[in-house]
Amino acid sequence: MASHPVSLSLAPAAVPNGSVGVVTAEVVRFEEPLALASGQTLPGYELAFETYGTLNEAGTNAVLVCHALNASHHVAGIAANDAKDIGWWDNMVGPGKAVDTSRFFVIGVNNIGSCFGSTGPSSINPATGRPWGAAFPMLTVEDWVQAQARLADYLGIRKFAAVMGGSLGGMQALSWAIACPERVEHCVVIASTSRLSAQNIGFNEVARRAIISDRDFHGGDYYAYGVVPARGLSVARMVGHITYQSNAMLAEKFGRTQREPAAGGGFHYGYGVEFEVESYLRHQGEKFSRYFDANTYLLTTRALDYFDPARACGGDLARALAGVRASFLLVSFATDWRFPPACSREIVRALLQNRRAVTYAEIDAPHGHDAFLLSDRRYHAVVQGYYDHIARALNLPPRHLTTGVLA
Amino acid sequence: MASHPVSLSLAPAAVPNGSVGVVTAEVVRFEEPLALASGQTLPGYELAFETYGTLNEAGTNAVLVCHALNASHHVAGIAANDAKDIGWWDNMVGPGKAVDTSRFFVIGVNNIGSCFGSTGPSSINPATGRPWGAAFPMLTVEDWVQAQARLADYLGIRKFAAVMGGSLGGMQALSWAIACPERVEHCVVIASTSRLSAQNIGFNEVARRAIISDRDFHGGDYYAYGVVPARGLSVARMVGHITYQSNAMLAEKFGRTQREPAAGGGFHYGYGVEFEVESYLRHQGEKFSRYFDANTYLLTTRALDYFDPARACGGDLARALAGVRASFLLVSFATDWRFPPACSREIVRALLQNRRAVTYAEIDAPHGHDAFLLSDRRYHAVVQGYYDHIARALNLPPRHLTTGVLA
Repeated sequence: MASHPVSLSLAPAAVPNGSVGVVTAEVVRFEEPLALASGQTLPGYELAFETYGTLNEAGTNAVLVCHALNASHHVAGIAANDAKDIGWWDNMVGPGKAVDTSRFFVIGVNNIGSCFGSTGPSSINPATGRPWGAAFPMLTVEDWVQAQARLADYLGIRKFAAVMGGSLGGMQALSWAIACPERVEHCVVIASTSRLSAQNIGFNEVARRAIISDRDFHGGDYYAYGVVPARGLSVARMVGHITYQSNAMLAEKFGRTQREPAAGGGFHYGYGVEFEVESYLRHQGEKFSRYFDANTYLLTTRALDYFDPARACGGDLARALAGVRASFLLVSFATDWRFPPACSREIVRALLQNRRAVTYAEIDAPHGHDAFLLSDRRYHAVVQGYYDHIARALNLPPRHLTTGVLA
Repeated sequence: MASHPVSLSLAPAAVPNGSVGVVTAEVVRFEEPLALASGQTLPGYELAFETYGTLNEAGTNAVLVCHALNASHHVAGIAANDAKDIGWWDNMVGPGKAVDTSRFFVIGVNNIGSCFGSTGPSSINPATGRPWGAAFPMLTVEDWVQAQARLADYLGIRKFAAVMGGSLGGMQALSWAIACPERVEHCVVIASTSRLSAQNIGFNEVARRAIISDRDFHGGDYYAYGVVPARGLSVARMVGHITYQSNAMLAEKFGRTQREPAAGGGFHYGYGVEFEVESYLRHQGEKFSRYFDANTYLLTTRALDYFDPARACGGDLARALAGVRASFLLVSFATDWRFPPACSREIVRALLQNRRAVTYAEIDAPHGHDAFLLSDRRYHAVVQGYYDHIARALNLPPRHLTTGVLA
């Protein structure tokens, strides 16, 4: 397999080894109305997306990466308009990386309902000439898949080598395999679940209550008032952040360390920041509330709540997956208490009942749910191994061995 | 031990077997200012309390029950002013129960800073003639113990047979054993910890941010505006409620059951209640926000954050407990992820290093942190066995065998 080592010293100085380099998003508009699960219709929409690598002549090497709650189409590389804006899965996607863009044509797509370029609640509603706001229709994971399928058509991709995602992105990958079985060769579902638990829904509801009861929410039409429900969105993000991390990781990172102890190492005795973990959470919340749209947060948590492909089959996941044709890689993380390994194992069992080929790895990473975004060598090795397997089956050219995690 | 069986058919019809009956709170005022850990001083204060049973002549059978975040002095029995208001630990405390009021003189005390009768932020500040509000001083667990010690003096109790509590109440019991070693014969610490984790502090901070950013908070002086920050307090309570229960228990109680499905069993596609768990959490939040004071919630979560007796000893809990003279019962619950068994084991280890007598039980209850309030037969049997042991050592009269959990 060892051939074509790339001399990475030839890469531009500003672009690190293994990066796809500077990337610019594209936007495509679909005029045909989109019928949604809710019964409503979205009258045409735009999708923002990025691509890395080259679609081969046979059109067999395309990989679709679906994003989670707070991410976007900017999966890898350096944003053209902001050199500090590195893709959210840059450690996973790039030349020589686990998802090797020198072999695969990788697409990152921003979902409808989002606030990063695709049509969403902050976009202009053609019926009124004002932002959609509360009038933007509710969405489901299945709606996203349907919208993404049109992007696949537009790009001339009949069948994906893989559809891939973590968390909510993994739900979309699973949903692709169910909705479009003939278009998905492999399905890569990481740190995900086939349905939220009562606890998950509870935390989402806390987040929504915090946003909706913010004085600046204005029933979802805050755009007209020149304000954003920043306090509520910040609280929502704080509670999310706690649940994305393991107890042990928060203990290791912050413990009970005080931020700026009072004289003699004491406390300030007030509601300002006393502990590092408070400072961290407030900072994360405030930062998030400056760039993320509250309506997008609301509808995305609702789409998470609604996802439950087994529901139409009386709760029988195996039956819901009966039509699936893809082979699967599932990865879970031991300390993920948001979507614990048991959620992935349930999907594995249902796939095996349907005699699907399934690879499953449970990674003993300490980071909780966030582990799916981080560079764990074992985790990336599993994904890389799986993509090598995909590439061999598709007769794609050999991978770059110089920068891969197994190299 | 079998003697004096009580003919419970003689009890008034409205009072169930094993109940202490109808109880009325007393209030005592302490004029001497209380110097607090924060450096501030509380200029006199009132404590509301209830007692059950009779203090014996030797004054050796007194048990102090300390309450947790949202509870009060109303530990057992039926409130005189509201027949539906049953004490929060009524399953634990009563004639023939685990803490047998026919043998022990049990005291429930409401902490300063609370909103149920003791002096707190909603009380009148003598310096202004208006509610304390934001001017009410911050409190610590140690401050509560100091305030309670004056109640013990007032009641003529030199030494408690036991000081007892669950969760934050357990912290107070532990703090009693440290601060007043000569006044505590036994210390009963249930579902508690010697210090909050970063995750615990994080959830508390989420709760506080939700309250403080409510438009009706008015910097803590909402009393003057005739409003309460009900939305924020409701969100705070919702997040608390999720963390008090195990994931499995929420799954069993609510799962993904829909509240009132739309036509055809479908969803409503909106932000109203879709799932039972949302309905439950909203109900709990709204109910709580009608009777609980937001400032009390704030200062109590802060007291939780601050508690860390090992802090003054460089984090060495064994050293912090070196002066303790009490014997201990500690109980933890396997599914308590707020204060997991590891927190109790850490206290057990530190006590054993000091050669204290320690009984420790880890109960495999499914309910999470809330288990300490519920009637688990094994849990109550452990507590009852321990109180039998206390009673034997003190030569108290034998227990009622007719209604005890072991009977």
